[in-house]
Amino acid sequence: MMVGIGVIGVGMIGQDHIRRITQVLTGGAVVAVNDVDQARAGQVAAGLPGTTVHPTAAGLVADGRVDAVLVASWGPAHEDQVVAAIAAGKPVFCEKPLAPSSDACLRIMDAEMAAGRRLVQVGFMRRYDAGYRAMKAILEDGSIGAPLLMHCAHRNPSVPPYGFTTDMIISDSSVHEIDIVRWLFGEEIVAATVLTPRRSSQAGADLQDPLILLLEMASGVLVDDELFVNARYGYDVRGEIVGETGTVALADVGEVTVRAANRHSGRVPVDWRDRFIRAYDAELQDWLNAVAAGASAGPTSWDGYAAAAVTDAALEALRTGQRTTVSMAERPDFYAKAR
Amino acid sequence: MMVGIGVIGVGMIGQDHIRRITQVLTGGAVVAVNDVDQARAGQVAAGLPGTTVHPTAAGLVADGRVDAVLVASWGPAHEDQVVAAIAAGKPVFCEKPLAPSSDACLRIMDAEMAAGRRLVQVGFMRRYDAGYRAMKAILEDGSIGAPLLMHCAHRNPSVPPYGFTTDMIISDSSVHEIDIVRWLFGEEIVAATVLTPRRSSQAGADLQDPLILLLEMASGVLVDDELFVNARYGYDVRGEIVGETGTVALADVGEVTVRAANRHSGRVPVDWRDRFIRAYDAELQDWLNAVAAGASAGPTSWDGYAAAAVTDAALEALRTGQRTTVSMAERPDFYAKAR
Amino acid sequence: MMVGIGVIGVGMIGQDHIRRITQVLTGGAVVAVNDVDQARAGQVAAGLPGTTVHPTAAGLVADGRVDAVLVASWGPAHEDQVVAAIAAGKPVFCEKPLAPSSDACLRIMDAEMAAGRRLVQVGFMRRYDAGYRAMKAILEDGSIGAPLLMHCAHRNPSVPPYGFTTDMIISDSSVHEIDIVRWLFGEEIVAATVLTPRRSSQAGADLQDPLILLLEMASGVLVDDELFVNARYGYDVRGEIVGETGTVALADVGEVTVRAANRHSGRVPVDWRDRFIRAYDAELQDWLNAVAAGASAGPTSWDGYAAAAVTDAALEALRTGQRTTVSMAERPDFYAKAR
Amino acid sequence: MMVGIGVIGVGMIGQDHIRRITQVLTGGAVVAVNDVDQARAGQVAAGLPGTTVHPTAAGLVADGRVDAVLVASWGPAHEDQVVAAIAAGKPVFCEKPLAPSSDACLRIMDAEMAAGRRLVQVGFMRRYDAGYRAMKAILEDGSIGAPLLMHCAHRNPSVPPYGFTTDMIISDSSVHEIDIVRWLFGEEIVAATVLTPRRSSQAGADLQDPLILLLEMASGVLVDDELFVNARYGYDVRGEIVGETGTVALADVGEVTVRAANRHSGRVPVDWRDRFIRAYDAELQDWLNAVAAGASAGPTSWDGYAAAAVTDAALEALRTGQRTTVSMAERPDFYAKAR
Repeated sequence: MMVGIGVIGVGMIGQDHIRRITQVLTGGAVVAVNDVDQARAGQVAAGLPGTTVHPTAAGLVADGRVDAVLVASWGPAHEDQVVAAIAAGKPVFCEKPLAPSSDACLRIMDAEMAAGRRLVQVGFMRRYDAGYRAMKAILEDGSIGAPLLMHCAHRNPSVPPYGFTTDMIISDSSVHEIDIVRWLFGEEIVAATVLTPRRSSQAGADLQDPLILLLEMASGVLVDDELFVNARYGYDVRGEIVGETGTVALADVGEVTVRAANRHSGRVPVDWRDRFIRAYDAELQDWLNAVAAGASAGPTSWDGYAAAAVTDAALEALRTGQRTTVSMAERPDFYAKAR
Repeated sequence: MMVGIGVIGVGMIGQDHIRRITQVLTGGAVVAVNDVDQARAGQVAAGLPGTTVHPTAAGLVADGRVDAVLVASWGPAHEDQVVAAIAAGKPVFCEKPLAPSSDACLRIMDAEMAAGRRLVQVGFMRRYDAGYRAMKAILEDGSIGAPLLMHCAHRNPSVPPYGFTTDMIISDSSVHEIDIVRWLFGEEIVAATVLTPRRSSQAGADLQDPLILLLEMASGVLVDDELFVNARYGYDVRGEIVGETGTVALADVGEVTVRAANRHSGRVPVDWRDRFIRAYDAELQDWLNAVAAGASAGPTSWDGYAAAAVTDAALEALRTGQRTTVSMAERPDFYAKAR
Repeated sequence: MMVGIGVIGVGMIGQDHIRRITQVLTGGAVVAVNDVDQARAGQVAAGLPGTTVHPTAAGLVADGRVDAVLVASWGPAHEDQVVAAIAAGKPVFCEKPLAPSSDACLRIMDAEMAAGRRLVQVGFMRRYDAGYRAMKAILEDGSIGAPLLMHCAHRNPSVPPYGFTTDMIISDSSVHEIDIVRWLFGEEIVAATVLTPRRSSQAGADLQDPLILLLEMASGVLVDDELFVNARYGYDVRGEIVGETGTVALADVGEVTVRAANRHSGRVPVDWRDRFIRAYDAELQDWLNAVAAGASAGPTSWDGYAAAAVTDAALEALRTGQRTTVSMAERPDFYAKAR
Repeated sequence: MMVGIGVIGVGMIGQDHIRRITQVLTGGAVVAVNDVDQARAGQVAAGLPGTTVHPTAAGLVADGRVDAVLVASWGPAHEDQVVAAIAAGKPVFCEKPLAPSSDACLRIMDAEMAAGRRLVQVGFMRRYDAGYRAMKAILEDGSIGAPLLMHCAHRNPSVPPYGFTTDMIISDSSVHEIDIVRWLFGEEIVAATVLTPRRSSQAGADLQDPLILLLEMASGVLVDDELFVNARYGYDVRGEIVGETGTVALADVGEVTVRAANRHSGRVPVDWRDRFIRAYDAELQDWLNAVAAGASAGPTSWDGYAAAAVTDAALEALRTGQRTTVSMAERPDFYAKAR
């Protein structure tokens, strides 16, 4: 079965998913597109024979050829678009964040529960990364005993000099660790604290970069997450879980070792695409497979909501300089345990 | 465009390619199968709705729904099947070896040249491995200067205790290095020598395992290749090119580092599928893309012939204990440089 | 010139230094020993021909053959012994801590300043470790830009089930990082915070293990230090400085890589002696060389004092759960910058 | 006891040993020096209070303050000097080669056997390297099963453009692997072959660089040794033993990992001193300890002879291009097994 996909939002990430569906993955075809910028939608569709351009997201959702919806628009538009897909009974893949506010996420959950079945997958692609998967496997096979703490670092080479705020380090960068530690440890985050190390002179004038985000899991596992968006030397995501009898850490990802000029060296990824391209592929293939099978997979609306609730707490912690308790609704039975 | 593929030979490797085309790659569909074991062909087709079982390879090639042919039968059958596909003007992907004898390879080349265009891709998947690709990129960007020699090791955990002969270490194992060094250095192999280290007591009684195969490139680059099919500890393919100003080596492939019981460690692949699965995926996607575009890609019939000619020399070197010159026809203009 | 050394305290560490001076280093000879346990002192001296046993530390200091004093007694005795050596105008090497209270350290400084020249070296051996030295060299050559933060981990395989308190994780373990970051960054620590991750069930009932100690340097550089004294898997000291354009991290220390049973692995040190034996050798040789040259070297009384002051703050932070400012006297001109 | 040492030959290596004895090791003092260049001997002695300059090696050996002799003169002078020390009943440490010809080595063995006790230690310092020691320990504890083959590489950054001949790659460089494999495997080398890869254009006009030396051990273990004296990128000594169930390889030796400019990297040693300085220290301390104890340690005259005999075969193999059998005398009972 070939899943007909309607893509809402054809900016950088939307176009990348279209390329993926068209040139890399199996079982899906882009049959419709929509974008607030209609001209852009038209240009993208021009390269996709048989693809309809819809002036509205609602029209796209209603299109009979659209079996499933991929939402890659900007965050504030997600809620309406995802709810529309749910209302139409169509599976929807929504890029992170599910919605910018936790209230909006709750409304999406309500709509999904009303629909009676899981229709939403949220785009936390790290759960599909071979490194994190191996890490979780080691954690679960008992090799390192019960987890006690985790060290993370999330380093981007740079951000645009203007328009990138310190809040965005939390909402755009740390949200990946917020989701992945929930998934790794299978439990919720209960509190957040933000520390401010010495500021890099390479950062824009208004940016406090780097940050250290401390996350406390329900069991007491403590996560420290270095967030550094002007790390310059490359894109580097690191992680080490410390357990009662051992540790497991993400390994370097270079393919070859070069010996030259008195150094032996390997490469560091240049950006997040380079580092996580296969995770994105695996994530979307998993979605396509689930849709084709009439099933669901991957991160749920609850995961999207929980990430939003923790992000809220972390942003308040950043503002106040205080440890901040995460305020989270009770988890509905509808949503299985966070694995 | 969806390429209709007919698969000849549905044993282990054939079935794996069918899984790949059906569940992993884009742009291809298996529409017909054939196998000397018709019952097996029927069982495989049963899982593929709309797939025709052909009693003969010739019938499969003639099937109008078959746009392209994938040959995964046993080696002695390759020549007739590949030539039939060429005669029908259909692109053909042939698993290695192209044919067991270099004469048969020459006949395939003649058929392809008579057809007037490249129709054959040979299944040397290592050319699609990220490690070898990075190695070739380093070699070509000048990081290590002109190449002088290369160290290779090709270690399998084990082989069946009966039926696996010392000749097969050359013809089945070393053929991968024979092809990859031709590709890495862009030149032919001119001589081969086989050395016999101390025999492993873990090897079957009649097996000389390990071997060292020495290959001399036309430019004088010397390759030593350790072949060890009972290495026990895992599947490990290693390589280091030594250049005039530096070296480049394949890195370890583990995703995580575990610290436990006084060791820090990473995993070694368990078998060739584990190690090269993505190379197989990339190889066959490249073929599907080329077929869809009416183009050709990857290793050619000439590469299949050259590997057979070097294998012949290496087998003679094994028998005689002497350095053996490779006897190779002149390369037709039809076949571009070995890149 | 052969330096005559009197050793006060011949327990485990004292005996190890005696072995070092006698069997490994050059330029020193143990000529006198003293211990509160006179029988033990006698036993140790029995293996050292020509060595005098002194019933009192004061007697040892006064011995004309004693050119320099090595203090390896228990902490509370250090002040009197070090001050006695200073009063006699004899160089003294004092194991860490210089004294258990910062007030006592200040009194030692006063005595030394009154003597008019540096006579005291404190036993912070990590400054002599090849790893930390390479790290400091990288920091200073500009390879990674200005430092912003540092991640440390200090893991011991285990501690005695009784008698080892949570306070001792700060005073005995973290004091090494307290000194090394002062030395690496050439500045003082201004505040400390202690975090308590999930407790290891392998730790004794009254022990909060692991801890995270946060140290704030005067420049804003933030240090997080994981302290884990029941890490089980080995003795592992890790560190990574993050600078504006790159990072530098301690490398693993194993001599060989073993490939067996589907793992490639290297060893982790079994204990601190295994990890730092050469740092201890280098430290004491540096002292012997300085004494022979009539000069001074290594960590000063000020370094001992600063470590005590920070330890005080960290212990209060542990008790209160609050960020605690370090209270430190002004640095006398007598003591050069902390490099 | 302080061993009085007479040093014959105070060129680069002799001076380095004098520094080592004087400033690093314990238990020895340089009391006499001799050199064919008397002015140089005088200059060296000027920095060593109480050291006598002897116009002749014989005079130095006869000096009553000289308890033991260190021979660091040029190779052709070794035989007479070592035999003189033996005749005087004085322990002698002789830098490699023991003597330039295997016949001369046999004469030294005869003199030593006539003296009735082991007096000679030969300067094969790699046996004292922590890497090779760990490798031997792994080999002996059964972690990798019985050894089958070994890959070695011995890379120097450069050699002088004039005066360094291809023969010297064998006699000066490969002699280290010749000795170390004898020690690692505890058996003799029975044959040698030399292969000539593509020549580096960075090598002097008359130099065939690199070479591959193949060594066959008595048990059939096969060693391939890449010798490359213009490797440019650094000084790099590599080795991997392949056993029946696993492998063990020398690890990289860098102290820290730097992340900068899209690479993670560690340093490669700049030269042999940098790489093996601690092996030299351990080697000479072992000699001093043995001399002080009236015992003997380390590589013997037999080891010196065996290395010379294998070197002879390898040089002939280089000249003839043929596999060459090693011609070796029977091992006298006087010399224990090569461990």
